[in-house]
Formats: sequence, structure tokens, C-alpha cells
Amino acid sequence: MAKKYVYFFHKGKTDGNAKMKHLLGGKGANLAEMCNIGLPVPGGFTITTEVCKIYYENNRKYPKELKGQIEEGLKKLEKALGKRFGDKNNPLLVSVRSGAAASMPGMMDTILNLGLNDEVVGGIIKLTNNPRFAWDSYRRFIQMFSDVAMGVDHHFFEHELEEIKRSLAKNKGVKGADLLVQEALNKIIPDTALSVNDLKELVSRYKKVYQKHKGSEFPQDPKKQLAGAIDAVFGSWNNARAIAYREINNIKGLIGTAVNVQAMVFGNMGEDSGTGVGFTRDPSIGDNKLYGEFLMNAQGEDVVAGIRTPLPIKNLKKENVEIYNQLLKIRLELERHYRDMQDFEFTIERGTLYMLQTRTGKRTAHAAVKIAVDMVREKLIDKKTAIMRIEPEQIDQLLHPMFEIEEEKKASIFSKSGLPASPGAAVGQAVFTAKDAENWKNEGKDVILCRLETSPEDIRGMNAACGILTARGGMTSHAAVVARGMGKCCVAGAGDITINENKKEMQAGNSSIKEGDWISLNGNKGIVYLEKIKLVPPKVSGPFDIILGWADEVRKLGVRANADTPLDAKAAVKFGAKGIGLCRTEHMFFQGARISTFRKMILAAPGVKTLREALEHEDDEIKKKNLQSQLQEPLKQYLNALSELLPLQREDFKGIFKELKGYPCTIRLLDPPLHEFLPHEEKGQKELADIMGISLNEIKATVESLKEANPMLGHRGCRLGITYPEITEIQAQAIIEAAIDVCSRGIKVKPEIMIPLVGNVKEFSLQKQIIIATIEKIKTKKKLKKLPFEIKIGTMIEVPRAAIVADEIAKVADFFSFGTNDLTQMGCGFSRDDAGKFLVDYVKLGIYENDPFQTIDEQGIGKLIKIACDLGRKARGNIKLGICGEHGGDPQSIKFCHEVGLNYVSCSPYRVPVARLAGAQAVLKN
Amino acid sequence: MAKKYVYFFHKGKTDGNAKMKHLLGGKGANLAEMCNIGLPVPGGFTITTEVCKIYYENNRKYPKELKGQIEEGLKKLEKALGKRFGDKNNPLLVSVRSGAAASMPGMMDTILNLGLNDEVVGGIIKLTNNPRFAWDSYRRFIQMFSDVAMGVDHHFFEHELEEIKRSLAKNKGVKGADLLVQEALNKIIPDTALSVNDLKELVSRYKKVYQKHKGSEFPQDPKKQLAGAIDAVFGSWNNARAIAYREINNIKGLIGTAVNVQAMVFGNMGEDSGTGVGFTRDPSIGDNKLYGEFLMNAQGEDVVAGIRTPLPIKNLKKENVEIYNQLLKIRLELERHYRDMQDFEFTIERGTLYMLQTRTGKRTAHAAVKIAVDMVREKLIDKKTAIMRIEPEQIDQLLHPMFEIEEEKKASIFSKSGLPASPGAAVGQAVFTAKDAENWKNEGKDVILCRLETSPEDIRGMNAACGILTARGGMTSHAAVVARGMGKCCVAGAGDITINENKKEMQAGNSSIKEGDWISLNGNKGIVYLEKIKLVPPKVSGPFDIILGWADEVRKLGVRANADTPLDAKAAVKFGAKGIGLCRTEHMFFQGARISTFRKMILAAPGVKTLREALEHEDDEIKKKNLQSQLQEPLKQYLNALSELLPLQREDFKGIFKELKGYPCTIRLLDPPLHEFLPHEEKGQKELADIMGISLNEIKATVESLKEANPMLGHRGCRLGITYPEITEIQAQAIIEAAIDVCSRGIKVKPEIMIPLVGNVKEFSLQKQIIIATIEKIKTKKKLKKLPFEIKIGTMIEVPRAAIVADEIAKVADFFSFGTNDLTQMGCGFSRDDAGKFLVDYVKLGIYENDPFQTIDEQGIGKLIKIACDLGRKARGNIKLGICGEHGGDPQSIKFCHEVGLNYVSCSPYRVPVARLAGAQAVLKN
Repeated sequence: MAKKYVYFFHKGKTDGNAKMKHLLGGKGANLAEMCNIGLPVPGGFTITTEVCKIYYENNRKYPKELKGQIEEGLKKLEKALGKRFGDKNNPLLVSVRSGAAASMPGMMDTILNLGLNDEVVGGIIKLTNNPRFAWDSYRRFIQMFSDVAMGVDHHFFEHELEEIKRSLAKNKGVKGADLLVQEALNKIIPDTALSVNDLKELVSRYKKVYQKHKGSEFPQDPKKQLAGAIDAVFGSWNNARAIAYREINNIKGLIGTAVNVQAMVFGNMGEDSGTGVGFTRDPSIGDNKLYGEFLMNAQGEDVVAGIRTPLPIKNLKKENVEIYNQLLKIRLELERHYRDMQDFEFTIERGTLYMLQTRTGKRTAHAAVKIAVDMVREKLIDKKTAIMRIEPEQIDQLLHPMFEIEEEKKASIFSKSGLPASPGAAVGQAVFTAKDAENWKNEGKDVILCRLETSPEDIRGMNAACGILTARGGMTSHAAVVARGMGKCCVAGAGDITINENKKEMQAGNSSIKEGDWISLNGNKGIVYLEKIKLVPPKVSGPFDIILGWADEVRKLGVRANADTPLDAKAAVKFGAKGIGLCRTEHMFFQGARISTFRKMILAAPGVKTLREALEHEDDEIKKKNLQSQLQEPLKQYLNALSELLPLQREDFKGIFKELKGYPCTIRLLDPPLHEFLPHEEKGQKELADIMGISLNEIKATVESLKEANPMLGHRGCRLGITYPEITEIQAQAIIEAAIDVCSRGIKVKPEIMIPLVGNVKEFSLQKQIIIATIEKIKTKKKLKKLPFEIKIGTMIEVPRAAIVADEIAKVADFFSFGTNDLTQMGCGFSRDDAGKFLVDYVKLGIYENDPFQTIDEQGIGKLIKIACDLGRKARGNIKLGICGEHGGDPQSIKFCHEVGLNYVSCSPYRVPVARLAGAQAVLKN
Repeated sequence: MAKKYVYFFHKGKTDGNAKMKHLLGGKGANLAEMCNIGLPVPGGFTITTEVCKIYYENNRKYPKELKGQIEEGLKKLEKALGKRFGDKNNPLLVSVRSGAAASMPGMMDTILNLGLNDEVVGGIIKLTNNPRFAWDSYRRFIQMFSDVAMGVDHHFFEHELEEIKRSLAKNKGVKGADLLVQEALNKIIPDTALSVNDLKELVSRYKKVYQKHKGSEFPQDPKKQLAGAIDAVFGSWNNARAIAYREINNIKGLIGTAVNVQAMVFGNMGEDSGTGVGFTRDPSIGDNKLYGEFLMNAQGEDVVAGIRTPLPIKNLKKENVEIYNQLLKIRLELERHYRDMQDFEFTIERGTLYMLQTRTGKRTAHAAVKIAVDMVREKLIDKKTAIMRIEPEQIDQLLHPMFEIEEEKKASIFSKSGLPASPGAAVGQAVFTAKDAENWKNEGKDVILCRLETSPEDIRGMNAACGILTARGGMTSHAAVVARGMGKCCVAGAGDITINENKKEMQAGNSSIKEGDWISLNGNKGIVYLEKIKLVPPKVSGPFDIILGWADEVRKLGVRANADTPLDAKAAVKFGAKGIGLCRTEHMFFQGARISTFRKMILAAPGVKTLREALEHEDDEIKKKNLQSQLQEPLKQYLNALSELLPLQREDFKGIFKELKGYPCTIRLLDPPLHEFLPHEEKGQKELADIMGISLNEIKATVESLKEANPMLGHRGCRLGITYPEITEIQAQAIIEAAIDVCSRGIKVKPEIMIPLVGNVKEFSLQKQIIIATIEKIKTKKKLKKLPFEIKIGTMIEVPRAAIVADEIAKVADFFSFGTNDLTQMGCGFSRDDAGKFLVDYVKLGIYENDPFQTIDEQGIGKLIKIACDLGRKARGNIKLGICGEHGGDPQSIKFCHEVGLNYVSCSPYRVPVARLAGAQAVLKN
């Protein structure tokens, strides 16, 4: 028997089911499933994703059996509905839609009303007694088919529509109608103002447009139309938009899209018809009630594209209570069946409800958490399922800052007509095109993307923006759906805003905003402010804490935070971190006036080094004395600067230890090369010269002498401590003295001193010796027999060599912390600052599955980590293993860390909840 | 029983032997051994190296038993010789010398004539009837003891000598005697012109100098003198000179120096006395005959320090035929006993011969090879011993270039009075201080160090120079011995040259040479030329070929060369390379006009990249067309430049293949980042702009856009081939077409294409695909069913990740070549360009035993290599493994390569013989 490529679905007569997503796509599988559970679905058939795969593998040719199977499906459908394709009396019209196994909303092409032609339009008029609807459908179909399937740009059609509207406006006596921008024209002459004759004229003009661009008449044969539409859908699988979407959303492993051919039902057959989108729960806040929007006398595309702003679903009760109740029932059936929140589309055709699709509903993180917790309470799912239901990446958005309340109160409002389309708050400079958003972002600017409405072409710009504002569209418009998926704040459909893309400005009332002006969005209320409002960290509680609590019960991996200040430490503990995995002491040196002291040390250091070396090589007593006297001044300056830094560092550590209340704190000694602390521009160097009271040339000479060809592989990390042992000494002293002080106040401390950039066990031992000697000195000074706390001395594993000789290092080090940023840089030989030039290509070509700086390269760097873990544990059974690179906050990398048996991950405070959840999921996935 | 710290030696009464080098030092063990075999050695005792160790470990304190054992040794010695320490009638005088297990000539301190004081000097006069000798010895002793043991600088004493000489000159009526430089003064009043009274006066003045500087009288108690001298010798073990010597000569694992206290014998007791240095064979050319120099009526130090130029040993026959015959006999006895060439010192005291020391003689590489081969023929040693006798590092000097004969014939001679102290030829700019030599070398200049005579303080400068020229001293002077050890050309004792260090110039006859003037040295003839003479490669043959032939029989490791041109390839084959292990194609791009073509390609490339990327992301047909038309121009320029390079590269490869005559040739595809090929200075950029006919700003913009933060980890290696596949294609095409062409001329070819900087197997596979596709294209074009030769496609292993995933790579790669330079950089996290700032410290502190860029870091990088070898062989049993980093020419690293079982090493052509020998030694050492 020939392979089955076409799966039929109709109430009671269905080939597929919900489990066949991979083959039928999400939409196709769910259409089949809805048929199976008895929901009212317009019949149709699905062409499988396998066809898409074969199509691309065979130079865009279909398997030969396909044509026959489609014919057969069509016949079955005609029979089931009692309509016929191309029949001028009882014509069958179909939609042709894409549908892959993963949802890619709006990414691929869709054609509606297929089957219409010059004859069939008459049949529709007869059947519906609604010539306006028929001609409107026909002109829409011509445009859509021409644009999507035949590549005639939609602008040519819109131009014709505009011309007709302009002449209507002239006829109406509108002044300056010739000069009106489209936007204004649409307000004066909305689509609904077009008469049947206007629409007829439009159809005629549209057909001419087609003829002009394609050199042949618009195809009248519905079967040819169908073949063209199927080509278009399969062809759209690999268009740039779809590829970009999959890239951004990290969608992989799909073989292609399916094509769903489904009988059309019409929401625009008059006031007893309508269309809508529903969610079985509120996708924004998670409330357990029917949620959605609808528009009477409209087609579904009107809602999704945001062309008209729809009404809340509760209003349907007034319009048609029976249908409303039917939806309430369907909502419960869907949830009982799918055990998850569903997002469905429906159409009412002359009083009859049709379900067009259902799928797992996208939701805000807030809603996801609440729904998961509620469903456990409702016994729909268990705790483990609840944990797995939350995308760790997504909950990050819960932790995004909100506005400072008092500041927000005082701020001037630009618009409050918008919908709260995606929660959170955003502050940025207004830009008016997606391209600008990308460009400005690349220059390091925060931007808000302001658009009339967004479309799939805007995806990259949306990704680049902090927040999104649209003047049109509802809660389920493209902008809203995508923004929620991205966890970005969005205010949609702010109807009082007029946007002028060309001039790059927008108006609301008397206010206007130009490109580059700062604005603020409140995505929870739908308000746009005319200024920059201060952001404050979010409060996390309720279901969020419950689900993280469940996660903590399951999780085996510890979670710590990377935090450099008492404030960070506080935030980390609040988010559930059980300690600090990386406290970067150099960040302390940048604060306020300290940088001057630190720079004083740096300016003296190279001289100290050079003279000390010269002394070592000198035997002549006279020359020796000479060198020694030359050394006095720089040495004094160097040591003085260090002693000035000592109390400052000590205070920092005290503050951190106090916040941690006995949780461990891994403190990394000075890491970056010294030149990073000096100004590289002449202006800054001049200022420094003035502050230091030395010449600009002297500063320049030091900067020059510290310059490195490859600073990433230069004089940094423990190499500094080897050259300048006093730096290690002072840092160790500050840590120990701070710990003793905090301990004496009855607060537990667990300091862990971490030596960076160790590649050779002897580097570690030399630095450890200094730390131990410093401890002994302090003990003597303070007359202590032993320290009143346990102290660990360990190392970063970030140099490949260190991973390879980890057994030797483990003999003397109490812990390892994998510095996966540097380990990736050195292990893969990529400079993070330069890899941009080729890494994008590398991920695109599949050389690396993911950007190895975002997700651990398990095959390579992961293998190095495994080697180091095995060697380390062999040499010291109880060695503590952690990770403090940025991968520590990446869910997929966390899964890896769990699998190799690390003791903990450390990540930025805001990623701590993500890590808590991802750690639990890692356990459950195994 | 107390530990034995003092070992006595005297004819027939000897505690030690030659095997006790570690404990007695080389000198002490051989003195004992000479006593044992009945040679006439002045008696004495050796204080062990263990004492030195204890001395440094115990804060410069001696073991308590030492004093008694020294007293006892002294008593024994007094008894054996019938002389007494401090006895004014029959006094014992001793020398106190250092002597470690490894020879460190002149590096540590020596004191002679110890035991002299105001009374003993009288006893010596009585005994010798030579007051001049007695007072001369006494004044020398005071200066030496004061300087070496008590830290009173010798300049103070020399000043007194000069003053006396100046007044003698005045008395003689020399005009302008007050203004004479020391040099001129010494010519007018040599030391021998001083009368007894002058010497007495000198002694008196010297004692005052001592009193002034030390605040006490010059010590008259011989035992106190002895204690001070022993202190001085042990103290000298860790002086800067000695440390530097051990550093430069890579001497490690010694516990300290021994101290030899030995009865003085005097070569300066009149014309029946003398002193000399002998070699059992000619250390310069290896001839099997007594070789050496002597001076009558002189002390040994006069010879070694080069103060007087000695006579060839054959002249001794005339002076004293008995002694001469005795030496001939001793020569044979020494060789029969030690089975190696010996270097010995002797003194004739009033007609009696004394052997002062013997040790394995340093020799030129030339001599080493000849002696080893001769000794096999003489059945003194076997072939394996002969192979082990040659220091691989040393034979490098045999391969140093000589002058082009015709050019040398025509060159103007500056001096031909010098001795051929160390063979070879050298060309460089004259400098007159060791410091200058170092500084100029650091600026990348070739220098010849010109000195009156050299001293241990000059070691670093000698190391920096290409060649060494001295005006004084013989074949065994410091300059000669050290230069031979270093394998550097040296002309010594060119007596007609006057050197003025202060003015930094020298004169010979009417010619003068100033600092910076170019000169040339012929170290085989002892000639100095006034100009730059062309150097040509050396001819290697005779015993050299024989011993390398023996080495080839033993060796298991293949030896290839790194060679980029037909000329290099020719040299490589001549030196015995069996193929090329690394042919760097980028070096070809720098030649002549090609760089312009290559730069044309580079200037177009980034535009091609950017536009191609934009095209990939563009769906809009109109914009697409627009981009495509924008792409035309840069693409044309880019492809045109590449096609211009194709025939040039093809010719290069043809030339190389022809030279190799069927030996394999590993060709590496383009490796360095593109910015390396562009000028970075504005001047060069302007020139380029003119050549290219574009604006300077455009050049600057490209340079800027190619700039990298860490170029070592940047867009280079196969990453270029991934971004610009056409570069890989053109290079592959050039290789294949050249191979087909050469093959068609009946010459075998074995091309191996090597893809650089692979870190991920997919990089390799993508590049391999391009190469395979190129081969297929060529086969189609040339109508070939298969290529007429075998081709291998393999990769460098130089990124740590590649080593870790070597099994995956081996599945698709035919060979691995370890790029240990980069593997060390990335594996250890050292940028070679920057590591200078800390790596010297690192080696000094013992963090790394050797500079890991010179000798493979076996514990770390070596482990990575082992991992890669094991994984590679597991995946592909017959995988070919080689090394092409600079370590491929380092003997210790070659030993490692043998041990991990590499198939071959590849090194620079001149290192090929070194590698052949080191490879054989690696087998014999196991």
C-alpha cells in the first residue's frame, strides 16, 4: 500500500489524533483530536510534515502519490459537507494553513476563502444573500493568494484600495483628500464604508494587478488555486521569517510543516456571525475562567491581525447566550481532555459555533505559575507535572523590575488607552521601525519599539526592544502574543496614538514623541508615560513560592548567586540562593573614590616589579644599594595604596557576610589584567594625571607597558598574585579580618577563598601559602589558637590545563568552581569579544547546536568539565564542585551540571529562581 | 659515627672516586679519581656538596661536625706534604675552589695562595729564593681574598696598581703619563716590569685598602683566611652570575657546590715552572692528539683569564721534553680510563708536573661528532654510546651558515690576528658592552659583541650576540669556552685590535669600527671583516653523516621539516627530512606583488560577508534584488583576486612537490586572521590606498572592522574557510592541480591537506566537503576517473577542544598534526606575545620546569596530546600522528613525542639533524 500522506478529519470520521503532532503538526493533530472528542470542527484534511521533508529533500518535488491522495481527500470532504469545489450553486471554500509540530504563530503563510472565482462568487451571493460579503471575500482572496502564493506584493493591492478610498473621500468632499496619509484615509473611509460596487471595482482592479505582474489571468480553477496554496505553505517553511523565528525561539528537530486544508466557515456573514479567540484560563494572570475576545461579523484574521479591536468574551453572553454557554462547556471539556490551558479559535456562522483550532495556550510566566499550582489543587495534574509545566526561561520575566510607585504616580501620561498586553515595565528610547530597534540595541541603547501594529517581519526588532507599544490590535494581536512569549512588556492597541513611521514620531492628544525620546511602558496597566521612570525589583510570592518550594523538594543541585555587594547578596538570598558562588572583588575597586587608590597601586606596581627583578640579578653591592634606594618610592606608593584599600575591602566583606547569615561565600581574588582599571582615552588619562599629580606621559607609559596583544590570555588572575604577592595578602587579610569581626557578633560565616586562572597546581600552592601565612599572622596578632570559623581555599577551573591536571590540584584545593566563560574561550579558542564575527554562522551551520557562551557545549567543554570532576573526586572524595560561569543560570546547562553531579550552580540573583526550577526539572527529566 | 663531610685526597690515600660527582662535585671527584689512578695530583680535601645544601637550608650555618673534620683534613695534608699552615719556614699554601656536579666554568669564586701573610711571605722567599714571586703571590692573594671573600671591590686594588704604574711611567719620562688610559699604561709598564719593591709597596697599599673598607687589619691567621674562603665559595653558589649561568645552561637538580682545598703548586717559580691546559683530543676539530696551551713562569689563572696569550702545547717539547712525554702518556691513560675526551689542567713547579684537574672536555659539535665516530672505530665505545655522546642542541651549530666564498674573498679584512675560537660565521652590528648586546638584540638587531676579553658578567650579552670577538685570550679563554658551548662563532685574542669601551669603538691598523657598524666574523679562521658578507648554508658530511646514519638506524620517530618554499624544501631534504610536516600557505602571500592581490581580496571580503548575510535574512524580492546587485562589485573583486592567486599558489606547490620527489607534504590552508595582512600604520595604509585606488578612510574602516580584542582566539584558521569557502576552494584547487601536473612529469607526489584551528568535527567536515567537491570538479574537468596519487585530508590539533573530541575528528580526518604552539597558548591560557611579563618568573619559581613554549609541558599539554592520541587511534587505528609546533625541534620534547608514539616530528630544516639524533637518543634512553 502507498504511504499515507493525507489525513482526513470530520466529526466521526477522523484519521488522526492529538499524539500525531510530529506528523500532522500541532494544528492538524488537534483538529483531528477535537473531532475525536466530538467538538464542532469544520471538516478537512491534513497533508503531513513528511511531505514537507520530502519536498525539500527532493529539490521541491512532491511524492508522486500525493496528488491522488489530495483528490481523494477533497472528494471525501465534498461528500461530508454536501458542497463541491467550484460549484456555482453550493460551492466549497477552504482555508489552507501551515502547522508545524511546534507553534510558530503567524510565521508561515495562510490563505483563506480558496475556491472563489468569478462564477463561485455568484453562488455565494445566492447562498448568503450577502453580495457585500461575497465580493469582500473574493477581493481578500485575490490579494492573499496573489501575495502569498504568487509573490505579487500586497502593497500593489493596497494601493488600489487606497485609490478607491481616496476618490470616495473626494466625492464626500473631504478637503485635501489627495494628500491624506493612508492612516487618516482609513479613518474617514473605513473598509466597511465600501459599497458592493466599490468591492466589485476592487476585484476587477485586483485581477488587473495580478495580470500585470504575472502575465496571465488570475487562476479561476479552484484545484489550481489549491495546488498553488499548498506550494506556498510548504515554501514558507524555509522563508527568512520562519527561519529567524525558529532561531530566536530555539526550535529544532522539526522535519517541516504540515498543510491543513479545511472547509471555510464565515464569521462575516452578518450580525449573527462572528469570530473569536478563547483561552480556557486567563493567559495573562492565570484565573480559572473563560477568557477571550470576539468580533461579530468579522473573519478571524481581523482579530489576529489587530485590524479591528475585539470585545471581551463576556460580552458574547449578551450577543448569543447559547453560544456563550456552549463555549463554557467546551472550555471544561478541553481542559479535562488536555489537562492544560488551551488556546482556541472559533467562528460563529449564522448562529452555529465552529471550533477552528485548539492548542496549548501561551501564557505569561505569572499565569503559567498560577495555572500549574491551581491545577495541582484541582487534581488535574500532579506536582511533578506542575514543575515541568513552567518554562524556566519564562519565569525570568516575573523577576523583571516594575516602576517605583511614587515616581509612576507623578509621571506624565502620554496615553492610557492601551491594553495590558504583556506584563512588566519597560523604559527606553522610542524607535519606529524594527530595523532601528536592532541598530540602536546594537549600539547599547535601550529602546521601545513603537508600531501601528506589528507583523512577523518585526520579530528581530521586537527581540531587540525592551518593550513594545502598538496603536492597534488586541490582547491576542501579533504584538501581544509574541511579546508575552518573549517575556517582554507590551502595551497594545493604544487607539489614541497616531504613529507616523516616515517622520519617526507619534502623537496622542497634544503630546508628541520623536525618535530617541525616552518613554516608559506599564505592561500591567497599558499605560505609556512621557518620561524615564525609575525601575524597582519585583516582589515574588504566592504560587511562585509554592512551585519553587516544590522544585526545591525535588532538586539535588544547590543554587548560589554571583553577587559582589551586600545589596546583591541580599537580593540573592531573597530569591532563594543558599550562598554566593562568585564574589568578584575587583568590582569593589571600581566604586567611587576607590578607583583612584587602586590606580595609584597600579601605577606603582610595574616599577616595583622591574626594580625587584633587577635586584635579583645584581650582585654588585653598590649597584644593589642603588637599586634598593630607587625601589623605596614606588614600593611605598604601592604598599600605601594597598593598605588604603584594606579597610574598604574589609567593610565590603563584612556587609556581605552579614547578609549571608552563615551561607557560604566564595570570594575570588583579583582577576582582570591591571590595564582594565586604567583609562584608555586621552581625556581620562589627563584627568588621572591631574589627580595623581604626575605627567600625562607617565600615565601613557604605564598604559603602554601594560598593553597586551591578547589580554584574555595575559597577565591576570593568579598571575597577578604571583607577581604582586602583596595583593593576595591584602585581600586575604581583608576577608579573614571581616569574617572574624562578623563572627564575633554572633553571625555565622563560611568564607571560601577562590584563586582565579590557575592552570598549574604550583600556582595554586604558591598563592595558598600566602593566604595561610596571612591567616597565621592574623592569628598571632589577635592571639587566636584557631579561627572561629571554617575556611576553604579553592580554585576556579577555567584554564583547560587545570581541568586536565585536576587531580593534582584537588590534592591541595578544597573546592573547584568551573569558570565556564573562560573555559569556553580557551577550550574552544574563541574570544568572546571577537567570536561575533563567526559564531552566528557557526550556530546557523549547526557546527555548535547553541551559542557555546549561552549553553554549555556539552560535547567539548562539558567533556573537559567531566574529566576535571572525575579527576578531582578521585584525588579528594569530598571535593566541592560548582559552576560560576554565566551558564549557571541557563536551564539546559543546569541540566548538564546536574548530570555531572556538581554540588551547586551559581548565577546572577535574578536567575536564581530559574536555576531552582531548572535544577528540579533536571531531576525529573532523567 | 658523625656524617663524613670532608674527603681527603693524596696519592695513595684517597677517600673519594669519580663516581661521587654528586657529593664531591666534578672537580673533587676527578681529583680523587686521578689520585686513585696514580696521576701526580697535589694533595688536598673536598668539602661535600651536602654541606652547601645544609648551609642554605639552615640560614647559612654549617653542620657542627664540619669544623673538626676540616682541622683533621688539614692535619693529614700537612703530614702528607711535610709542610705546615702558617709555618714561616715550610709553609703550606692552598687554593680554595668551588666545584659542582656540573661544570660551571668561572661561575663561582676561587682563591689562590691562601695561607700567605706577612711572615709566611718571608718563608716563601727563603724556600724559593724568588722574592718577586713571593711578593707578587702575596699581593695577588690580598686582592683575591679581599674581593672574593670580603667583598672589597677589585677596582680599588687595580687603582693602586695603576697609580704605581703611572708613577713608574712618569719616572721613565713617558709624556702625558697622567692621562694614559689603563690599557696604554699596561702596554708601557706590564706587570712584569714591577720590581720587588714596587710589589712590596703594592702589598702595603693593598692592606691599607682592606683596612679602609673593612675597618680591621687584613687577616694574618691562615685558618681565619681558610674559613673566610670556604664561606665565599659556598656563598658564591647562589650569586646572580651562577644563577644566570644555570638558567642559561638549563642546569638543574644540583644540591650545591663542593669546596676543594688543595695544596698550591706554582707555575710561576721561574722559567723551569709553568702552567697549562690540555685536551686529550683537539676540542675544536676532534683530531686524536694532545691539544692544549701553556705558559712558562705563570699561574693557571693567567691562561684561563686570557691575560697572557699562551703557546701551543707542542712548543712544550722544546721547553721540557720529559714533561711533554709524560703528558702524552697521561693523555692515553686518561682516555683509557674515562673513555671520553678529557680536559685537564697542569702545573710544572720547578720541573715537576702536577695534574690539577681533569674533566670531560667541552668540544665543538664538529669535534664531538668526529671524536664519537673515531672512538667507535678505536673500539673505546660502541655506536649507542657514540649517539648518546652528542648533545643534540650542540650539533645545531654545525648547520649554521658560512660565508659565500667569493664574497668572502673580496671582503676587506679588519683583522686576521685572532684565534678560531668557535667555528661558524657571524654577521652583525658591532656593540661593545654585554648590556648593549642584550638591548640591541631585543630591538631585533643582529649584533657582534666586541670585548677586550669576556668575563662571567658578560654571559647574557654573549647569549644575545650572533658572534663574539675578543682582543685578548686564547683558545681556552672564557670567551672561547663559553662561545663553543653556546655554538656561537667566536674570534678570540685578536691582538692587533684596540678596543675603547667608553667611546664604543675599536681600531686595527688604520681601520676603525664604531658601534653599529656591520662586521663579519669567520670563526673557523679567526678573521674579522669590515663589512656584511653573505651567508650560505653549511655542507654537512663525513662523521656527521655517519653518526646521523647510526641514529637513523635506532630512531623510530619520522623526521619532517617545516618548509614553505621550494628552497626550504630542498634544504629540508638535504638535511635528511623525509617530507614536509608543515607548509604554511600564507607565507606565500607575502611574497612580492602577491601581497597586493591578497589585500585586494581582503578589502572586498568583509563586504561580501555582510551582503551575503543580509541576503539570507531578506525575503522581500525587491530588496533581495537590490542586495544582489550591491553584492556584484565586491564579489567580483573578491573572486578576481582569488583567481589571480590561484596560478601563483599552484606554481609554489609544483616547486615544492618537485623538490620532495614523493615524500609527503602537509599543506596547511590559510591560517592567520586577515588583519595580519593589512598595514596598521597610517603610512602603509596610505600607500595601499593609492595602489588600490580607494580612499584612506576606506582602508582604515576595513582595518578597524577586522580589529580583534584577542586575535589569537579570533577569526582565523578554518573559521576563515567557513566564512569564505572560496578561499578553501582556491587553495585546494591549487594543490590538486599542482600535484596532477607534477605527477604527469613522472615525479611522485603525496599531498596532505591540513585544516587549521579545528575545534569541532563539523568545522572539519564542512571544509573537507569543499575540498572533496573541488577534487570532483577537477576530475570532471580533466576527465580523470581517479586522482593519479593518494591524497590525505587531516587537521591540526591545536585547540584544546579538538584534543578532547579527537575520536570524533579521527573518524573523518586522515591525520592529526599537533600544533603545540597554539595548543600551549590555549591550553595554558598564555598568550605567547604577552607571557614574557610573567613566564620568566614562572620558570624561576619552578611553576613550569621549562618555558612551555620551548619544551613541551608534559604534565599539562603533554597530557592533552596523549588524550588526543589515544582517542584518535581508538577511532582510526592507522591515523597518522605528527607534531609541527616549534617543539618538534626541541630534544626533550622529541623524547616526549617518541614516548607517546607519534609517527613523526616536523621542525625547521636546520633542526632536522638535531631531531634525527634526539629521536635516536629517545629510543636509547628508554
